[in-house]
Amino acid sequence: MGIFKAKGVVYKPVDDVDLGPHSDEFYLRANVKAPRMAGLLVKIFVWFLESRIFGGILLYMLKRNNLIHKLVSYAELEESPVFVPSHPYEDLKEQQVKLVEDDLSPSDKVQKAMECIQCSESMQENSELSFHRRTVLDYSRAYISGEITPLMVAERFIAAVHESSEPALHMSFFIDYNVGDILRQATESTQRYKQGEPLSPLDGVPIAIKDEIDCMPYPTTGGTKWLQKVRHCADDACCVKRLRLCGAILVGKTNMHELGAGTSGINPHYGVPRNPYDPNKVSGGSSSGSAAVVSAGLCPVALGVDGGGSVRMPAALCGVVGLKPTFGRVPHSGVIPLNWTVGMVGILAGTVEDAFITYAAISGQFPSCQPTDAVKKINFPLLKTPKCISNIKMAKYGEWFNDCTDDIRVCCSRALDQLHKHYGWETMDVTIPEIEVMRLAHYSTIGSECSNSIACHLENMNVAEIGLDARVALSVYGSFSSREYLNAQKIRNRQMQFHKKIFAMADVIVTPTTGVTAYPIFDDALKTGELDYINGAALVRYQISGNFLGLPAVTIPIGYDKVGLPIGLQFIGKPWSEATLIHIAFAMQVCHYCTSEC
Amino acid sequence: MGIFKAKGVVYKPVDDVDLGPHSDEFYLRANVKAPRMAGLLVKIFVWFLESRIFGGILLYMLKRNNLIHKLVSYAELEESPVFVPSHPYEDLKEQQVKLVEDDLSPSDKVQKAMECIQCSESMQENSELSFHRRTVLDYSRAYISGEITPLMVAERFIAAVHESSEPALHMSFFIDYNVGDILRQATESTQRYKQGEPLSPLDGVPIAIKDEIDCMPYPTTGGTKWLQKVRHCADDACCVKRLRLCGAILVGKTNMHELGAGTSGINPHYGVPRNPYDPNKVSGGSSSGSAAVVSAGLCPVALGVDGGGSVRMPAALCGVVGLKPTFGRVPHSGVIPLNWTVGMVGILAGTVEDAFITYAAISGQFPSCQPTDAVKKINFPLLKTPKCISNIKMAKYGEWFNDCTDDIRVCCSRALDQLHKHYGWETMDVTIPEIEVMRLAHYSTIGSECSNSIACHLENMNVAEIGLDARVALSVYGSFSSREYLNAQKIRNRQMQFHKKIFAMADVIVTPTTGVTAYPIFDDALKTGELDYINGAALVRYQISGNFLGLPAVTIPIGYDKVGLPIGLQFIGKPWSEATLIHIAFAMQVCHYCTSEC
Repeated sequence: MGIFKAKGVVYKPVDDVDLGPHSDEFYLRANVKAPRMAGLLVKIFVWFLESRIFGGILLYMLKRNNLIHKLVSYAELEESPVFVPSHPYEDLKEQQVKLVEDDLSPSDKVQKAMECIQCSESMQENSELSFHRRTVLDYSRAYISGEITPLMVAERFIAAVHESSEPALHMSFFIDYNVGDILRQATESTQRYKQGEPLSPLDGVPIAIKDEIDCMPYPTTGGTKWLQKVRHCADDACCVKRLRLCGAILVGKTNMHELGAGTSGINPHYGVPRNPYDPNKVSGGSSSGSAAVVSAGLCPVALGVDGGGSVRMPAALCGVVGLKPTFGRVPHSGVIPLNWTVGMVGILAGTVEDAFITYAAISGQFPSCQPTDAVKKINFPLLKTPKCISNIKMAKYGEWFNDCTDDIRVCCSRALDQLHKHYGWETMDVTIPEIEVMRLAHYSTIGSECSNSIACHLENMNVAEIGLDARVALSVYGSFSSREYLNAQKIRNRQMQFHKKIFAMADVIVTPTTGVTAYPIFDDALKTGELDYINGAALVRYQISGNFLGLPAVTIPIGYDKVGLPIGLQFIGKPWSEATLIHIAFAMQVCHYCTSEC
Repeated sequence: MGIFKAKGVVYKPVDDVDLGPHSDEFYLRANVKAPRMAGLLVKIFVWFLESRIFGGILLYMLKRNNLIHKLVSYAELEESPVFVPSHPYEDLKEQQVKLVEDDLSPSDKVQKAMECIQCSESMQENSELSFHRRTVLDYSRAYISGEITPLMVAERFIAAVHESSEPALHMSFFIDYNVGDILRQATESTQRYKQGEPLSPLDGVPIAIKDEIDCMPYPTTGGTKWLQKVRHCADDACCVKRLRLCGAILVGKTNMHELGAGTSGINPHYGVPRNPYDPNKVSGGSSSGSAAVVSAGLCPVALGVDGGGSVRMPAALCGVVGLKPTFGRVPHSGVIPLNWTVGMVGILAGTVEDAFITYAAISGQFPSCQPTDAVKKINFPLLKTPKCISNIKMAKYGEWFNDCTDDIRVCCSRALDQLHKHYGWETMDVTIPEIEVMRLAHYSTIGSECSNSIACHLENMNVAEIGLDARVALSVYGSFSSREYLNAQKIRNRQMQFHKKIFAMADVIVTPTTGVTAYPIFDDALKTGELDYINGAALVRYQISGNFLGLPAVTIPIGYDKVGLPIGLQFIGKPWSEATLIHIAFAMQVCHYCTSEC
């Protein structure tokens, strides 16, 4: 019973942990003990990992060296496990909101959202910038005026995707797009505008869907070469259905990290979605293609799925807005069930307003597809002028906040100064304990759930069909015991309590979105994928609470590093506080667009 | 990756499964592949199981041979996992109930319960029987009349426990009882009666507590020799606190199967609680002592904990009433957290009325200690006359119902005939699919949770302090992967759906409580415990849905087998339908007491 001899941390009671700025809680930097590997090295590593004899020993060492044993597996916790991060709905009494019924139709919700942003400041200023991605409103106004038709846009879109796929660019944005299907939707939309009966301001707007979400007529690959053979897509996912009801043109399935099991977005089967800011850099993952198409201006909006930052990380690396709603806010039906307790459909958009409009279209538990408490109302923010929102308190954990590159730190700190200068919003110093513990607990959880989710399919298949880096992930994912899983859920309980206390003091937690900006794509990774857990850990550093605790979060581009790669700032909110997050992101966007003088 | 080659069952969609009487669903008998072991054999087995080299192989074989691999670990399920069997509260519109506020004080709730049973028929008839255990009302009336005092009862109780512990009997009912503490409580109660101010009808009534529930001034051993050293008992459990508020005399901590990890009740450290109907037979477990003291007439009521039938099985074997409430109906705080999703405090009592009174005292989520949906009302049954309750529909799955000894089958079938004859209640034939699958899934779940719960304590201890059969259990419990745990939770989802459909057709499910009556205690098991998975499986056969699905259930003694050992009949109810269950059990009791002619 070797297990009896292992040593784990004994966690102290939650109430004994000081969350104040002078806490003696220790900030533990991610202690990643694994060198970057790609090419032949990955092949050898996979061979060892999958061998009956060496595999177990290697996995044991990996988990021990990366502190999973000490901090999770053998830890002593007095909390009960909390399995699902669902939150009872409460009216947060947010400032400047409109309450919208949960069971309104998607197009009615979009209409309500439009009313909320009518007096928005940023649009106009936005359009004066040299660099301008077309927004939903740009499309809608142009369609209504007759200046352009959805069919013309669709044709240009198809040409652009085609061009981006040529060897010269090889952007690998999409796994699949069907020209006939796009043109058919565009023709129908054009017809509706001709008759003066568009379904909503999203009518005719091209929206791309991550290939983890069911969208007819495409198979759903999850970035693999095999999943579509065992899991057939027979209907739109709930969120896609809602977009379709609004008239959006669903323009295809975006590329992604295989099985969502990585953060670089490098996909050995469908190519690397390249970063529009620098095609030699990654887009981040796993919703890499969705971030890249929005960044490139091909669509104003795309959907992703965020199980461990998979919407927010690529959004930050590609300089777009990323919104991950509260757990349960968007029904999960029709999304590949790679996990059940951490993933959520999320939105990638060029502007905060577009993220909000899309959020309006897809949010709502009616009809409920998840066992969360029924939410009867949704708070929509009234985006008049950010100055209307007073006294926002932003919790900041200095040591964590600063655990990133110099450029990111400087840029994010300046953003907080801007918010203070313009709106008087205060940053308050706090300590959020056990962040690295939470990362490992989340990893055990998402890994266990992913492993469980696809194990039954792996029985009858040729493992050579799976990319090598995904095979490494699956080996590690399959190594977790039920005891480890349960300890991870106890850690979830602790963090739910810690965060509840933080949110009793502050409206949001503010962090950089990622610890690094987009990093290079090396040739040796193209075929085998790469194992780069150091960059991986830096990417997910600020993401975990959004998934593990089911909290809503938004990332907004706020500047660039020295080589011109985008930097994102993240706000993590209380459960069901999307309205406040959108308000804050909007305020940040206004600051950002009125140039550096701001 | 050997795992990829394993073969699991592919379950068909829930909606494709026929739950009618002519379903082609196959009834799978428990396929236990393990011989009875005790004494030296157990020692050898434990040595192999705990050895680094053989242990893994042996566990693999055990799980494969007992169909865990095929039916759980590698099964293909399309359901999402459901981790916690909590049910949203709904008003069931039960017949003849009084709605009681959840936040009433325990003594007020007892008072309401007394009003509900005032016109009860059974009491009077009951008292004309030759064999009669004293009821709560007997105590209460005698105390009020002054015929006897709580102090006199306490003294007699202490003498009786003393006598039962003598070598001649060696009943091993209690792990601990404190004469001084009992007398102090009895003196205070006597004083209250003298002043005409008893706290409730439970004032002065001796109640025993399973040693898995915190009760001052005792340590809580969980049937072990070590747990009390690492987990200190500093306060009463919530349920005990409520009994104390009603004036009950808490008379000590009853013996139990070590860690609740078995069904025989044989405890190598504290002796075997012997069956009062035949001291050479087991009492059943794990709440063995609690069932035995009530059966022996030492207390009218005892508390147990039911994680896998641990209240209902010993109740049936000892001829008493056992009530397991809906998951979340009684706060779990102060119960050793050996599991989080299957265990519930339960009640062992001589009569249905006493079980009801105790239920009234301890039930209620206010203040909530568990993350279930808040229940604001509790339905109390008006126990006037069973004939008031019409049209009860009892679902019966014939093949399952009949998978027991002949005596049990005959006796239970006759009981259903009586209910039909007297009250016109119908039995309806149904098929409940995958019962053996549910047993294995529950086993994986309770095993995983128990392992997680105590693993951290095992680090620094001498394993020789743990009984051998508990060490076997812990080895198996520790062998589950997170993938298996998650598959078990998917099976929970399936069964929740199956049972919802059954309960749309019927009010209750009726089964024998156990597949066998009390079986012999062999001498070779006294020191080592025994591994008897065949009797174990027969005992738990009808228990699992109560725990795994969080359903309320009640067992009521209805007769005896050929050698005079008690037989129990079980009713499993809809979530929150305790009132109906108590009504039905009461009706059954009335039938039973008016002799076999009935």
